[in-house]
Amino acid sequence: MTTITNHTYDELNVGDSCTRVHTITEDDLRMFAAVSGDHNPLHLDAAYAATTPFGKQIAHGMYSGALISAAFAMEMPGPGTIYMGQNVQFKRPIFIGDTITITLTVKEKLGKKNEVIFETTITNQNGKAVVTGEATVIAPSEKLTINLAELPSIQVGNHAYDAE
Amino acid sequence: MTTITNHTYDELNVGDSCTRVHTITEDDLRMFAAVSGDHNPLHLDAAYAATTPFGKQIAHGMYSGALISAAFAMEMPGPGTIYMGQNVQFKRPIFIGDTITITLTVKEKLGKKNEVIFETTITNQNGKAVVTGEATVIAPSEKLTINLAELPSIQVGNHAYDAE
Repeated sequence: MTTITNHTYDELNVGDSCTRVHTITEDDLRMFAAVSGDHNPLHLDAAYAATTPFGKQIAHGMYSGALISAAFAMEMPGPGTIYMGQNVQFKRPIFIGDTITITLTVKEKLGKKNEVIFETTITNQNGKAVVTGEATVIAPSEKLTINLAELPSIQVGNHAYDAE
Repeated sequence: MTTITNHTYDELNVGDSCTRVHTITEDDLRMFAAVSGDHNPLHLDAAYAATTPFGKQIAHGMYSGALISAAFAMEMPGPGTIYMGQNVQFKRPIFIGDTITITLTVKEKLGKKNEVIFETTITNQNGKAVVTGEATVIAPSEKLTINLAELPSIQVGNHAYDAE
């Protein structure tokens, strides 16, 4: 069983950061389409996407928001964090096969109610910022290690979804 | 084959709005956990969630962001829209079984580059705001009707995922 441990408010310092790396697959886009309800062929149909200014399938903008939110939940501050708000600017498209790096950096500790402002940035394999933004979270007061939940296996068409 | 038609920049007026309604299932949370990578048991494990201040499983905050983004893509302005940025404030938890209403309302047409600011609000079945925020999009110039992409069937554990 996998466990994760949080960073408490007192342990966080301005400038602290964490990163997560993910390579985008077509199944990621199919999964995000299914769960969000956005079935626009720009994300799902290579032939259609080729007719658009993007030229090929792009990830849903808010898929990058989902990856940012997971970094807060899983990495920093981690378990016990309460997500208060997020703003995101979508700067460049993310394509299938792109390897993106999600970075959270402590920008400011507000002192009241354990609120912390984080910079939230995603860059692609060319070092270009594809998403910028900031989030406000309430960091946990107490040190906490939790067991991650097991998910049932998920099949997309005739094969298993691989989230790695 | 299902088709959707957009609202062009010229057709949009301040105050125009659209709504989408969705009832949250446990499979929605499993799907969002898989695609985002956020496997925190607060979203997935009823026994664990009962030990938290929320008392029961809550939806991932950014799942509501995903539903807002789908409303832009599918409803208003619809096909051809470019999503520039979004801010969201998570005001109250969303639980399994809640029926939420996503509302997009034209707040301001900026005049340049077809940019439009929308208010983005989600309320629950009790009329309480669970998510508030704003988004900036570039609305399409040209009227467009497109065929939605077909997704492969998705299985969660031993049953099909039902996104409705």
